[in-house]
Amino acid sequence: MQLNTPFTPPQRLLLGPGPSNAAPTVLEALGKPLLGHLDPVFVGMMEEIKAMLREVFQTKNEMTFPVSGTGSAGMEFCFVNLIEPGDEVLIGVNGVFGTRMCDVAERCGAVVHRVESPWGEIIHPEQIKTALKDIKPKLVAIVHAETSTGALTPLEEISRAVHEAGALFLVDTVTSLGGCPVKVDEWQIDAIYSGTQKCLSCPPGLAPVSLSPAALEIATSRKTKVQSWYLDVNFLAAYWGETRVYHHTAPISMNYALHESLRLILNEGLEARWKRHEANHQRLKAGLSELGLGIASQEGHQLWQLNAVTVPDGVSESEIREALLNDYSIEVGAGLGPLKGKVWRVGLMGESSQSEHVDRFLDAMKTLLKK
Amino acid sequence: MQLNTPFTPPQRLLLGPGPSNAAPTVLEALGKPLLGHLDPVFVGMMEEIKAMLREVFQTKNEMTFPVSGTGSAGMEFCFVNLIEPGDEVLIGVNGVFGTRMCDVAERCGAVVHRVESPWGEIIHPEQIKTALKDIKPKLVAIVHAETSTGALTPLEEISRAVHEAGALFLVDTVTSLGGCPVKVDEWQIDAIYSGTQKCLSCPPGLAPVSLSPAALEIATSRKTKVQSWYLDVNFLAAYWGETRVYHHTAPISMNYALHESLRLILNEGLEARWKRHEANHQRLKAGLSELGLGIASQEGHQLWQLNAVTVPDGVSESEIREALLNDYSIEVGAGLGPLKGKVWRVGLMGESSQSEHVDRFLDAMKTLLKK
Repeated sequence: MQLNTPFTPPQRLLLGPGPSNAAPTVLEALGKPLLGHLDPVFVGMMEEIKAMLREVFQTKNEMTFPVSGTGSAGMEFCFVNLIEPGDEVLIGVNGVFGTRMCDVAERCGAVVHRVESPWGEIIHPEQIKTALKDIKPKLVAIVHAETSTGALTPLEEISRAVHEAGALFLVDTVTSLGGCPVKVDEWQIDAIYSGTQKCLSCPPGLAPVSLSPAALEIATSRKTKVQSWYLDVNFLAAYWGETRVYHHTAPISMNYALHESLRLILNEGLEARWKRHEANHQRLKAGLSELGLGIASQEGHQLWQLNAVTVPDGVSESEIREALLNDYSIEVGAGLGPLKGKVWRVGLMGESSQSEHVDRFLDAMKTLLKK
Repeated sequence: MQLNTPFTPPQRLLLGPGPSNAAPTVLEALGKPLLGHLDPVFVGMMEEIKAMLREVFQTKNEMTFPVSGTGSAGMEFCFVNLIEPGDEVLIGVNGVFGTRMCDVAERCGAVVHRVESPWGEIIHPEQIKTALKDIKPKLVAIVHAETSTGALTPLEEISRAVHEAGALFLVDTVTSLGGCPVKVDEWQIDAIYSGTQKCLSCPPGLAPVSLSPAALEIATSRKTKVQSWYLDVNFLAAYWGETRVYHHTAPISMNYALHESLRLILNEGLEARWKRHEANHQRLKAGLSELGLGIASQEGHQLWQLNAVTVPDGVSESEIREALLNDYSIEVGAGLGPLKGKVWRVGLMGESSQSEHVDRFLDAMKTLLKK
């Protein structure tokens, strides 16, 4: 195999469940000259990434940095460091990612208890409180924004119940961070992970995480070794901390991109960014309504950044989705699990959340649904 | 924290243990527009990556693809998939990375037996044969090119002994792949991993791996679940295989870069590339000799792509290394473990392996050592 020309991707409008489009300066950052991972100039940039991530997560947690893997590696990072075999955990399951957390926790040897809601609905504080009457888990894990359904579970009341029960609170914010409020310290979240390719609008490849001092204490005073060498926070704390002990080679270019995307987010301002996501969601919802389309997730708890749009009777989900991609170069996502064939997942995340993009999508849908 | 301008790294000549410099078209590839990870155009490019990786690894193994993490994630991928608790493994230890393999294997529950050589020397076939008289391990693991010392362990005779003993053969080629011969099928390697940032000259962030049918059979017929969800080949085979079942979001931009770097490698030709690495190593060695400097690793088994250059008596290793970086913008690496303060690690990997680079380094050293 010998290819004569470089790969040239087409320009897509990315309105799926991620990746979202990246800003031009983020793509430029990726192509900048490489530095060594222990170069003082790179190390200085790592410090800026940590400081900016703390602002985006709204936390003072020292242990805040990007794991060198995608969002799922961030999930695994949290569980492998906090769980030892035999530990009990309580997990809210209302979509793909809660289900995945159970699998990851079980692979760490956890005894997993589930609290379940139908796909599209949220996990209610009462469900957690009821479960906590019978068990005393080491941690409770919740998916803030379920990417598979578009439901946003409110966290504050759940967090209070979790801490009253003496447990740690672990939260998946892969899709929420940067698109709607996420307040780690105020909401007393002990372990949190996200991905770069959603509302941070940086290409996929890194998983921002943050551990509270309580979580870090548990991770660094375990009886057993962390089962993953690659994700062991005892090493990563030294690598991303002051001593800079070599662990693995950080993905240099991806960190350039994350640095630039965080810079853009803080220059826009978190509040302004959240308002933009809300406004474009409302614009989409109004336009969908004119087309006779609804949103499948629970009213009052619908995500701004990911919309599970119901497929009307007699319409082929996949035909419309493929026509959007092939004829309009617009990507939207398919439904997963019980929502397969029943919804399109329309993401308005980060750079992709623009009024022009909403209109372009709605115009295309109007034409396609008429056919 | 609000930064007014994007991060701008200086231009470095990267002659350390990796990352090496990337070709201009590889850096350009990183900045190309994002695609969704299930976009047919991206999926087509994934197929080209797999086909090109097979050529670079010299294998027909179907299960050949880049793990979404750095080289150490590739190491972990091999061990977590092949090892179940209680399995015996035999590991050659002659530097940092053999030591790391022991740690990773133990975290998988393996009973680890070590065969050790002094740092800078190779693992001899006789050592492995002797060890295999007493134990019957499930797998034997060897570091082909020890990045911490610059020693290249020949694999063919070891491989024969391993297979005669009925074990799988696992090899670390993080530093060797793309810089000197690596022949997976001819040498009967069952599990192999590498990193992108060495002789492939792609930024760090992906770990090319390949599993033989025998290794894949073991990984897919385990009694216990793979302890890492993120690295479970049972999922990854479906994601990178024909069914394209969603697992995690592949790092899009990093895969663009890997595609381009593999394209450049195959257009140069593997044989020509190996010869270039050999010639520049010889040029370096001759120049070092004129400066009264030697190479610390075992004569006859010195890596072309990574040279552990001995620090003369009375010279400060760190002062010279820092002056190279600050005054000449040339990065070289420090020694690790027992070689700390005693060697500079001078990499001539991929794009960094050029005669002009060798001369630029030698000229700088000549000036600095005179001071």
